[in-house]
Amino acid sequence: MSGHYRGGLSSIEAALAWVDAAVHPLETEDAPLREAIGRVLTQEIRAERPIPACDSAALDGFAVAADQTVGASSYNPLSLPRIELSAGEALPGGTNATVPIEHGEPDGAGNVALVEAWAAGSNVDRLGAVVDAGKILMSAGTVVGRRHIGILAAAGFARLPVIRRPRVKIVQSGMLRGGAPDSNGPMLSALIERDGGMILERGTIDRSRAALAAALGAGGSDIVVVVGGTGPGREDGSAGALAVAGELAIHGIALRPGETAGLGCAAAGVPVILLPGSPAACLCCYEMLSGRAIRRLGGRDPSLPYRSCMMTTARKIVSAIGMTEVVPVSRRAGGSIEPVAPFSEIGLMAAASADGFVIVPETSEGYPPGASVNVYLYGDRFGQ
Amino acid sequence: MSGHYRGGLSSIEAALAWVDAAVHPLETEDAPLREAIGRVLTQEIRAERPIPACDSAALDGFAVAADQTVGASSYNPLSLPRIELSAGEALPGGTNATVPIEHGEPDGAGNVALVEAWAAGSNVDRLGAVVDAGKILMSAGTVVGRRHIGILAAAGFARLPVIRRPRVKIVQSGMLRGGAPDSNGPMLSALIERDGGMILERGTIDRSRAALAAALGAGGSDIVVVVGGTGPGREDGSAGALAVAGELAIHGIALRPGETAGLGCAAAGVPVILLPGSPAACLCCYEMLSGRAIRRLGGRDPSLPYRSCMMTTARKIVSAIGMTEVVPVSRRAGGSIEPVAPFSEIGLMAAASADGFVIVPETSEGYPPGASVNVYLYGDRFGQ
Repeated sequence: MSGHYRGGLSSIEAALAWVDAAVHPLETEDAPLREAIGRVLTQEIRAERPIPACDSAALDGFAVAADQTVGASSYNPLSLPRIELSAGEALPGGTNATVPIEHGEPDGAGNVALVEAWAAGSNVDRLGAVVDAGKILMSAGTVVGRRHIGILAAAGFARLPVIRRPRVKIVQSGMLRGGAPDSNGPMLSALIERDGGMILERGTIDRSRAALAAALGAGGSDIVVVVGGTGPGREDGSAGALAVAGELAIHGIALRPGETAGLGCAAAGVPVILLPGSPAACLCCYEMLSGRAIRRLGGRDPSLPYRSCMMTTARKIVSAIGMTEVVPVSRRAGGSIEPVAPFSEIGLMAAASADGFVIVPETSEGYPPGASVNVYLYGDRFGQ
Repeated sequence: MSGHYRGGLSSIEAALAWVDAAVHPLETEDAPLREAIGRVLTQEIRAERPIPACDSAALDGFAVAADQTVGASSYNPLSLPRIELSAGEALPGGTNATVPIEHGEPDGAGNVALVEAWAAGSNVDRLGAVVDAGKILMSAGTVVGRRHIGILAAAGFARLPVIRRPRVKIVQSGMLRGGAPDSNGPMLSALIERDGGMILERGTIDRSRAALAAALGAGGSDIVVVVGGTGPGREDGSAGALAVAGELAIHGIALRPGETAGLGCAAAGVPVILLPGSPAACLCCYEMLSGRAIRRLGGRDPSLPYRSCMMTTARKIVSAIGMTEVVPVSRRAGGSIEPVAPFSEIGLMAAASADGFVIVPETSEGYPPGASVNVYLYGDRFGQ
């Protein structure tokens, strides 16, 4: 089936190398804290002021000058002016310790009686104890996490410099006659959102080269994802259209499913990923190619966004030499894995019913039972 | 410090048991596919029709009746009516195989020449090959993942029955004098979003019992999170207000940081979580208590939403007997962990600078070097 590709199929490694060479992180924007979560900081963030900004009560209690408590005991209660603070409030001038509220006995005359002495600094959060002025709160290149939001807000940051979200244009080339429901559009939307992209535009065009060439105008997008029209059929023209409208770098990749995928650039230099219209191939090529490109645009870790670990095969996994193959697998009790019905048989149902997948390299015929293989695990917990 | 809690501190186990007994999954709603991601299906989803709905071309090619290709060879090309299909299109009646497009030679007269015979079923995706009519696509109780979206869309589902999102009311009781920036509000918003909740309302009130009692009206929310006013200070009244306005079940938990937290119900039976106003304690109590309640309301896995694994301590971890303690840790080269500056010293900076945390149970004094402990790891990759 590869006969129509000029030069035959490219290896997945060559395709990934093209993506890595052609796609670079976008520029910075200032995003509100909440919208910065999951995105990549472009500058280090330093505390402009110390936290706390002054010596503060570490708990609810009474502010005292420690030297005035010397000698206090249950036999010799000392009465001091009552200065009651809530945890976090500034110690007034002249005080340097906080007596826990249950250790002081207020009277009705504005004083509080103490029955023990307190050392200077007792129950005090010192100026700068959390963060000194000038200290780095987050380093450039860090992914902003939910666990960072509190300290950033406390330090007065309402916005953060992060790489802006990639704007993605989806062009669906030619729906099938017969009107089966479209699965690629909703599936890609969900995946692009996961990878931090925002969909600028999602349109359907007919399969003519003219329509495709027109649609390849990037129109303000950072990447164009074309779906369908990658095969050798009479009506298939996405590769040809890209070759005319911009640059077709690769067409035909030794990836199964997905060998009709292609890569290139639109006239404006915007990367274009040509995904097969067949849903399982569309999914796998998105995961391997488009997702990587979108994650790179956003400055994220470009590797597959699944947890991976080494697991043992309980049954053999068969794969064709010369093709990198995405093999869906399920987990068995005991922690081993076995292949399930492949994408070539049950299409997208393979992804829905598997627990993860193995990528068998081009050079491998697969794995015997008992082999240790790297498994990418679907993370059910968060809907991945 | 526990003297003011009636009955002393409750164990974290008792607090979790209260949450589990008081908080139950909400009802179902029909959500658009995209908004269903990460949420829990309440009914099994079955394919109403087979996929494909009819025998279809597995690749771009020519539809043929296999028995009409018998005898074709390069010495004896057979000419058949040209019926060109794109991958995925229905085979017309009377045909039962697809000849790959590069294996047929169209002439100008509406026919295609074949030079080999093709078996019935060649390159055909059979009716129902992906999914038979009536087959279960997803089971009740499954978390909807991005990997399910394609097959669900293909099966014609635009909406799914999932547990509705918990509506959360946040009441911040009394900002501190001095006007340091609020960290709790932004931090809680980010965490509630992670746990699938939607913030119905977020308001700030003064610390008077009257204001708190008024704010405890749930107002259409499924859970109320009160921040601040949990301590023994003169102005602290959230526990007292809850006792008057509804039911105070627990006040004072043997959790560090976080021992002033409380639990109860508003008059309408809506669960109320009282979080300390001190930011690090607020964070830890949210993670241990409110987050669990919100995840339970949404029908999710209630346990902490972090990946956990057993790791070895490189230095000892010290903890007080009688208190469950949240200890921030960092990873060392080689995969071991060590404690970093604790919440009690550097507040929220502990969460921002750690790689994860260990929960040391009430009954433990901590761990010696070389101990194997369960570590919850912050997932930097997705901003968690």
